[in-house]
Parts: sequence; structure tokens; C-alpha cells
Amino acid sequence: MTTTTTDRILNFSAGPATLPEPVLRQAQSDLWNIANSGIGICEHSHRGPVFDNVLKEAVADCRAVGTIPDDFEILFLQGGATLQFAMLAMNFLGEGEVANYLNTGVWTTKSIKEAKKIGNVNIAFEGSACNFDHCPADDEIHLVDDASYLHYCTNNTIYGTRFVNVPSSNAPIICDMSSDIFSRAIDWSKFDMVYAGAQKNLGPSGTVLVIIRKSMLEKCPDTLPVTLNYSAIAAKGSRLNTPPTFGIYLMGQVFKWILEEGGLQEIEARNEHKADIIYHALDSNSDFYTTFARDCCRSRMNISFKTKAPEFDALFLEESATQGMSGLKGHRDLGGLRASVYNAFPVEGCERFAEFLKTFAAAH
Amino acid sequence: MTTTTTDRILNFSAGPATLPEPVLRQAQSDLWNIANSGIGICEHSHRGPVFDNVLKEAVADCRAVGTIPDDFEILFLQGGATLQFAMLAMNFLGEGEVANYLNTGVWTTKSIKEAKKIGNVNIAFEGSACNFDHCPADDEIHLVDDASYLHYCTNNTIYGTRFVNVPSSNAPIICDMSSDIFSRAIDWSKFDMVYAGAQKNLGPSGTVLVIIRKSMLEKCPDTLPVTLNYSAIAAKGSRLNTPPTFGIYLMGQVFKWILEEGGLQEIEARNEHKADIIYHALDSNSDFYTTFARDCCRSRMNISFKTKAPEFDALFLEESATQGMSGLKGHRDLGGLRASVYNAFPVEGCERFAEFLKTFAAAH
Repeated sequence: MTTTTTDRILNFSAGPATLPEPVLRQAQSDLWNIANSGIGICEHSHRGPVFDNVLKEAVADCRAVGTIPDDFEILFLQGGATLQFAMLAMNFLGEGEVANYLNTGVWTTKSIKEAKKIGNVNIAFEGSACNFDHCPADDEIHLVDDASYLHYCTNNTIYGTRFVNVPSSNAPIICDMSSDIFSRAIDWSKFDMVYAGAQKNLGPSGTVLVIIRKSMLEKCPDTLPVTLNYSAIAAKGSRLNTPPTFGIYLMGQVFKWILEEGGLQEIEARNEHKADIIYHALDSNSDFYTTFARDCCRSRMNISFKTKAPEFDALFLEESATQGMSGLKGHRDLGGLRASVYNAFPVEGCERFAEFLKTFAAAH
Repeated sequence: MTTTTTDRILNFSAGPATLPEPVLRQAQSDLWNIANSGIGICEHSHRGPVFDNVLKEAVADCRAVGTIPDDFEILFLQGGATLQFAMLAMNFLGEGEVANYLNTGVWTTKSIKEAKKIGNVNIAFEGSACNFDHCPADDEIHLVDDASYLHYCTNNTIYGTRFVNVPSSNAPIICDMSSDIFSRAIDWSKFDMVYAGAQKNLGPSGTVLVIIRKSMLEKCPDTLPVTLNYSAIAAKGSRLNTPPTFGIYLMGQVFKWILEEGGLQEIEARNEHKADIIYHALDSNSDFYTTFARDCCRSRMNISFKTKAPEFDALFLEESATQGMSGLKGHRDLGGLRASVYNAFPVEGCERFAEFLKTFAAAH
């Protein structure tokens, strides 16, 4: 365990979440004056040469990070994943059509609620029956034929579960990757649209990354408001109207950081290692800690667990705070504790946390 | 004219636009570690105590800046004014209803196009007939009775025109104030909803301020997607889902800056003075410069003009750039030149610019 002098603490927040420190240092400088232009990043015209370059690099670096094929558009939108819940249905769930949804947690429940305002939904897996403690295998999923798409969420932030594999589907797959995008490689042959709110693995809240197969864009109805039409936004390269320039800039810096760190291969290995450190500490003290997710689908991003009694959960929060650890309270829907360790969360922080887990269990 | 040593230049961009330098200095610090929390502003949970405070102060300071009565909600949204064009119609233009629109430029043309996707629009003033060179007086406006609302835009960024007074209307008034909000006092007795993209007078792009009379919220249909329903967003105090935390933070800092500068009374007087400096330089050289807007409704935020010949416009851009002046090219729809001098643009910058206007005219 290295000790460094810093005024920053370990931030286990589920999102908005910790960002890479070199990115923050660069952003501090660029807020005042970016690229020696004499103007800060928030103050540049979204149609001027400095932001032209920021956007061009963000798209290119995103493509490089995700090894995204050329037949996918990379778009920067707004409104969070929650607006996407409605927008994807407005674009791809036509009258008389039906879409398959896998319900694996609070967020997919919301996505279903929004889609039902637009069209017909088949809930092909209902996880509430098992308290959302796992993501389904193919034989638990009951798809309807001729669906417009299958919608699911790769990683469930609250319950700490994830899909290890992509479910089978004959229909296009639209996937909410808000909490694990670019934490591991993506097999693009299996997806038609992927979206993610930025505030976990990518950047600041308020920007949404949408990666969409170009052929999907032909389906977007002209009758939609322009800002809710993927095709209209793609036609203008994310600059249909003024985009969230700082959010795109900061995401672009995070993409550069991922590439400098060695790309997704290195990041994925690191994430596996980080999660293993923490799960190992929990499993080694299984008389004291219980993890929420079934072993089959433990998340590497969000580790939801509890101690042997609620009073120890409360004490855990108190004592961890004195050790410079923040954001460990579980989501209000699940209670208990949760450690979120996205891409930018350091290995050393996981080691310190594992140490704390052991010490705390031993002491109580 | 004072000379200061700085690496920053004069930024006349129409938006995103120049921000107050003390705000940028504070943001540089808070990006790394805000309120001595050990966590940067972009990394804090939107439901944690630090952001609780940021949001609470932003709302309170906004209310103080605008002298906004308690029967108005203050909301922070996303998607720019362009999403508002659709959203306000989705909320307030029901089936079989009609709304009055004043068309005074490119942005209101877009607002009309979006509203027509939702319902019936009466164009109560069509400014294209006079090339959008002014905002109409009441006797030029032909309202239909029993309209759901009247929509207009207080300040037209491209043409450099503004409404000096609020038009008469029996229906609720919904107003796009993107380019002049908080540049002058607002008579809240006359408005039912005001909205503004942040990137001109308020903060970074990607955040929209909506100030809405509470009684309007009763009209929002439950059938709308939650993120497009003002009532649903108001019920959750702008935290229905993860809000754009950095944008809200930065707007909050701008509100504090306005209050420290003396509030809207001082800002309004300063804006009048700033615009006068530039218009005086243009009018004193009227053989060389022509302003676009009719005298009756010259904008104090955006001054659109041209020199006596296009080749001098081009030369003007070149020479002003060598003097550390940026963003003076007119909008592509109008051509010529434009100086945008929002709240944060310094008086001294207007003086330097007026000097340049005189010198350039004399030299050519």
C-alpha cells in the first residue's frame, strides 16, 4: 500500500463517479484557455475550429477505444439514459409493433415504463420475482417473434449484477451500457444500438453516448421532434443544435486516458483484478459479509453487499469515512453497502478497501 | 484603456460565450476538490450532500438574481432550447388547440416547425417579410383568441434585434430568453414560462434554465415521457434522473457573480452602457458601417453589422484577430459581422472594440 499526499479521497460513488486525475488536471487548464486559443473550453463556439477539433478527436478516440466498426455512428446526446428509454421507443417501436424487454432492475423497470407509453412491450424476463439477484441465462428468457428489438441493460448498478454474455435474439439488440461501457470489449456484431449516460465510466453527467448501426437510422420517423430523432442528429454529426461542449470535451479526454492506459484490453484486465480484490476480501469473511448478486453474474463495477446486521452497516459507513472513503452507502431501493469501482477507480484504492473490509470484520 | 497581462483574448462569440473570469478560477479549483470534500464537482453523487447544497444555492441565487416570485418553479433541464421548442408544445398544445407564435428569426422559425409537429400554430407575426430586421409592435401582431399560449423570443441572436416591451396577450406567454436572460429585469406578471439555453448569459451549453408558473404544471399530460414532462421534473426538483451537475454548478457560480456585481440593476445599466459604446462607434462612422436592426429594437447582446463592402468584412476579421479579438464573424444566415457582448463581456472590451471600429474605418 503506497501512501500519497493528496487532498482527494477514495470516491466509491455509483455515479457521477471518480474521474481520472490526469483528465481533471488537463480540464482545469483547458477551462481557462484551451489549445492556446486564449478562450476556455466552455466558452468556445460549438462551430468554431477549436471545438471542431475537440469533437473530431472525441469521435475518433471513442472509435479507437471501443474498436467500433465504420457502420456505426457515434453520437453525443443529452438527457441521460432516462430520456433514451423514451427516445429509443419513439424511434424504433412503431404502431402495432412489439419489443422484448429484460427486466433486471430499477433502471430496466423504468425503461419498460417509458416504452409502454409509446408502444407494446413484452417482458421477456421478469427479475423482480428473484429480487433482481441475477441476470438471466437464455433459457430464462421468453422472447416474442418478430419483435422490433430486444432491450436490456448489461450491468445493474443497484444490484451489482451483470450479463457475462450477450443474450440471443433474432431482433436488433438495443443495450443500456450506462454503468459498464468501455469496462470490457464489446462484440459489435451482436448490437444495433448501445447507449450510456456519461457519469459512470465516461465523464460528467448530462452527456449521453449513443453508438448506433447506420442501418437503424433509416427507421427513425420524420414526425419526431428533431432533437429526439437519431437520424436527424446523426445527419448533423451531433451538432443539430448546441451540444454539451464541456461534456463532449471531458469524455474525449477520458477516451485519450483509456488509450494511454493501454486500451480496453488493459482496462478489462485491471477491472477484473480490482473486483477480484474486493470480492476476495468479502468472500474470505463470509461469516460477516454477504454479497447480493449470485456468483454467476457478479458485477465488476458495482459490488453490493451487507454486513451481518444493519447496525454494522451504519458503523461501516462511519468508520470508512474516517479512512477517507466516500460513497459506500447502498442504493435506497436495496439498502446495505455498495462499492462502485469504475474504470477510473484506482487499483490501490481497491487494495486499501479490501484491507479495511478485513480489519472491520475482525474488529466486530 | 487599461492594459492587463493575460493569456486570454476578447471573445465575441454568440454562444457558447465568454464567462466571468472569477467563475472560471473557482471552477478550476472545484473540478479537483469542491468544498474541501476531497472530490471534484463532476464526481459527486447528484444525491449527496455536496451537490444538494450546490443545487439548493443555484435555485436560491437564481431566484434572487431574477427576483422570481414564489409561484414560479426554477428547473434545470437538458437538450438546449431546441428540445424546449418541442417539449413546451408537447406539454401545453393539446389536441384541437392552437398557439400563437411570433416569427422574428431563425430560432423562432425552428420553434414553429417543432410545434407544428405537435399541434396547430397561428403565426401571429411573420418577420421574414422584412428580413427579420425588427421585432413587432402590438399593432403588427395578429393573435387568434383562445390560444393555449403565445410564444416568442425576446432577443434574436442572429439579427441583433430585441423586444423592448412584452407583447400584449390574453393567453399565457411562453418566452425563449436564451440570449438575453438576466441581462435586464423581467416583469414576472407577464410571463408564464421562460426558458434559456445556458450557453450565452448563464453558463456552459447542455443545461437549460426553465422558470415556470406553478399553475402551468397542472396542464402537463401524464402520457408524456417523464423527462419531457415539466410537472414530473418539478416534482423531483430537477433530479428526476441524474441532472447535468457541472452545468448547474457553473450556472450557480454565474448567479453568485451577478449578485456580487450588484445584481440585475447594475448588470442592466452596464449592458446598456456597453452596447451604447459600440453602437456609438458604428453610428459615428455610418458611411463605413451599417447596423442590421432597425433603431427601435437594437439588441444589447448581439450587434449585427457590416462594413461598406464584403472585402472589408473579411479584412475586419483578419485585423481584429491580430488585436486579440475573436468570434466576430456574422451568422452564416445573415453574413457580415457580429459582436456578442453578453453579461460577462467586459466594458473594457467594448471600449477596445469601439476604438478598433474607429481606427479600421479611418484606415479604409
